[in-house]
Amino acid sequence: MNNRKQTIAILGSTGSIGTQTLDVISQYPDLFEVYALTANRNVDLLIKQALMFRPEIVAIADDNLYTTLKEALNGLPIKVFSGEKSISEVVSMSPIDTVVTAMVGYSGLLPTINAIKAHKRIALANKETLVVAGELITKMAIDNRVDIIPVDSEHSAIFQSLVGENECSIEKLILTASGGAFRDTPLDKLQSVRAKEALKHPVWNMGAKITIDSATMMNKGFEVIEAKWLFDVDIDKIDVVIHPESIIHSLVQFRDGSIKAQLGSPDMRHPIQYALTFPNRLNANIDRISLPQIGSLTFKQPDLNKYKNLNLAYHAIRKGGNVPCILNAANEVVVDAFLKEKIDFLAMGEIIEEVIAQSDYINSPTLGDYISCDTTTRQKTIERLKRV
Amino acid sequence: MNNRKQTIAILGSTGSIGTQTLDVISQYPDLFEVYALTANRNVDLLIKQALMFRPEIVAIADDNLYTTLKEALNGLPIKVFSGEKSISEVVSMSPIDTVVTAMVGYSGLLPTINAIKAHKRIALANKETLVVAGELITKMAIDNRVDIIPVDSEHSAIFQSLVGENECSIEKLILTASGGAFRDTPLDKLQSVRAKEALKHPVWNMGAKITIDSATMMNKGFEVIEAKWLFDVDIDKIDVVIHPESIIHSLVQFRDGSIKAQLGSPDMRHPIQYALTFPNRLNANIDRISLPQIGSLTFKQPDLNKYKNLNLAYHAIRKGGNVPCILNAANEVVVDAFLKEKIDFLAMGEIIEEVIAQSDYINSPTLGDYISCDTTTRQKTIERLKRV
Repeated sequence: MNNRKQTIAILGSTGSIGTQTLDVISQYPDLFEVYALTANRNVDLLIKQALMFRPEIVAIADDNLYTTLKEALNGLPIKVFSGEKSISEVVSMSPIDTVVTAMVGYSGLLPTINAIKAHKRIALANKETLVVAGELITKMAIDNRVDIIPVDSEHSAIFQSLVGENECSIEKLILTASGGAFRDTPLDKLQSVRAKEALKHPVWNMGAKITIDSATMMNKGFEVIEAKWLFDVDIDKIDVVIHPESIIHSLVQFRDGSIKAQLGSPDMRHPIQYALTFPNRLNANIDRISLPQIGSLTFKQPDLNKYKNLNLAYHAIRKGGNVPCILNAANEVVVDAFLKEKIDFLAMGEIIEEVIAQSDYINSPTLGDYISCDTTTRQKTIERLKRV
Repeated sequence: MNNRKQTIAILGSTGSIGTQTLDVISQYPDLFEVYALTANRNVDLLIKQALMFRPEIVAIADDNLYTTLKEALNGLPIKVFSGEKSISEVVSMSPIDTVVTAMVGYSGLLPTINAIKAHKRIALANKETLVVAGELITKMAIDNRVDIIPVDSEHSAIFQSLVGENECSIEKLILTASGGAFRDTPLDKLQSVRAKEALKHPVWNMGAKITIDSATMMNKGFEVIEAKWLFDVDIDKIDVVIHPESIIHSLVQFRDGSIKAQLGSPDMRHPIQYALTFPNRLNANIDRISLPQIGSLTFKQPDLNKYKNLNLAYHAIRKGGNVPCILNAANEVVVDAFLKEKIDFLAMGEIIEEVIAQSDYINSPTLGDYISCDTTTRQKTIERLKRV
């Protein structure tokens, strides 16, 4: 670490990862400086955060909330913006060293691209960016010599296990999965589960969308795709293992048969801090685990009949092109519909599968293709939902 | 790896580690060349190995076996030596790159010192060397810029977990222990166990001395001391956890709360190969583990009342000076006596404790002090055994 503070922009500062990132930053006032905070709609929390961390810039995606934000910060030397576009623009400001992409879903794509173009270090917490356009993003990162440091606990575990290792000796990546809210629910009971039950994650305390994605294991499917791009590994070399205790965050198997793993308490502040301080490790006030106290760590194969979405994700990335983009867009729409109790749990996977089957395949999509594919898929999925 | 083959001397080639080292080497004839093989007494196997691997040099510690060895290799371009001293001398021969120290017990000390002085890379499988004289050996290795690469599975696991990490961020080392043959035997039954039962190790197939040391957990105590010296870590930062499945070979906890671990099937060929190929990893025909197949990994605190010897080892390294040397010498004598059914299982720890209490403390022993401390302690322990 040099003496200058690392200046940070947090996109999605009011969400689960955003607030925990601020928690980490507040532990190290000498190391980090918050330069920009952006949020989607939670203006009250954004105001609170701005008053506490005094960034140079705040931006809110929803234009209707501009005045509320502006007035609350009146008289302070904080620039206020609104609109999706402003968020994409904020990231390229020159004093920013690191952009933490903690928005939900597809909305992370354009800001991440802008941040890469502006040569910012990316602490990637928005996996959908790589799900939708992994090929384009990773190529862009290489061309611009930008480091993408994963924040997802699984990918951080793999990233940490690979420190000092040669990536060409990777034989397999093993992503662990808690199994989500319905880990112990048999397939025939899943038809009738409600959003409220799906939102009870057994281990991690996260936002609504990702918690539903965990229950369907679409989240794990996304992580498989994310891992493929982050670590440049063939999809057939990425396995998923159910590990209910969520203590081993993921593993790497090397060609000599050796496996390395990263473990710890399930606390997102750890991978967030690591992403900000890599390659260094700083003290952290995070619970230490005691293996004797935990007693046992258990593992089983995921049931792909039960977790249809995991299967769909493997299918999508094997097909490649715009299929993962379709997968993601259809998923965002059906998860929203499930949260609003418009469709049942198992319908989510069925509708996504249908939408993928009915969409046109594009082999090497441009950014424009991704954007229009996302829009078309959402419309198509919304149309489909009208027939439920 | 450069194009020249790595030339290797194996000290103790007929033992468990020695034969497995040859097994690894035979997989990679383009990479490794066996330069010297040495054994204590197993002349038949040494002859077989010499005929197969055609080293430049063979040496046998027992002078009485010189003629047998010499005659068997008659007419071949293999130099034959005998005597303990010849083994210590062989290691300094200039074509040797790497010395694998796979002898049993104290006998590893002098050859290892000579190898370090001759600037050979050390693949250390003889933990007693560091137990007896860790301070002296590690200082000597630093002064001579010699790498000591651990072969013990636990230390290899820690070594692998530390690749690319800064040693100053270590918070704790966690050594796993199978618990040995009497893991599930209550303390009050240990009085009556016999050598034959102690030799049945639940996981690892090893030599007799180390298998008894595993049953008493003196082996783990030695590993704690070895880890202290190898990784320059305070003794209070080294924990032992019972892990019956022996899948996680050991772990490192960092100051950010993150833990890294190395896992794999319990097969010594892995750490041996890693020690020879580090920092590279080569393909290996070693069983891959499947976590879902294993199902669960369990952990518990070792019972220090039951494993008195583990406690003695912590005590010895905390006192420092010549105490670990006394610990080791007394242990070698009592293990031998137990194997010959002269004393019972629990007497081993009691006698070691007595001998330590009755020995003179030397604060900063020289090599000469270690040598005479070893001799005196053995005599003292043998005397004590006469009173059993």
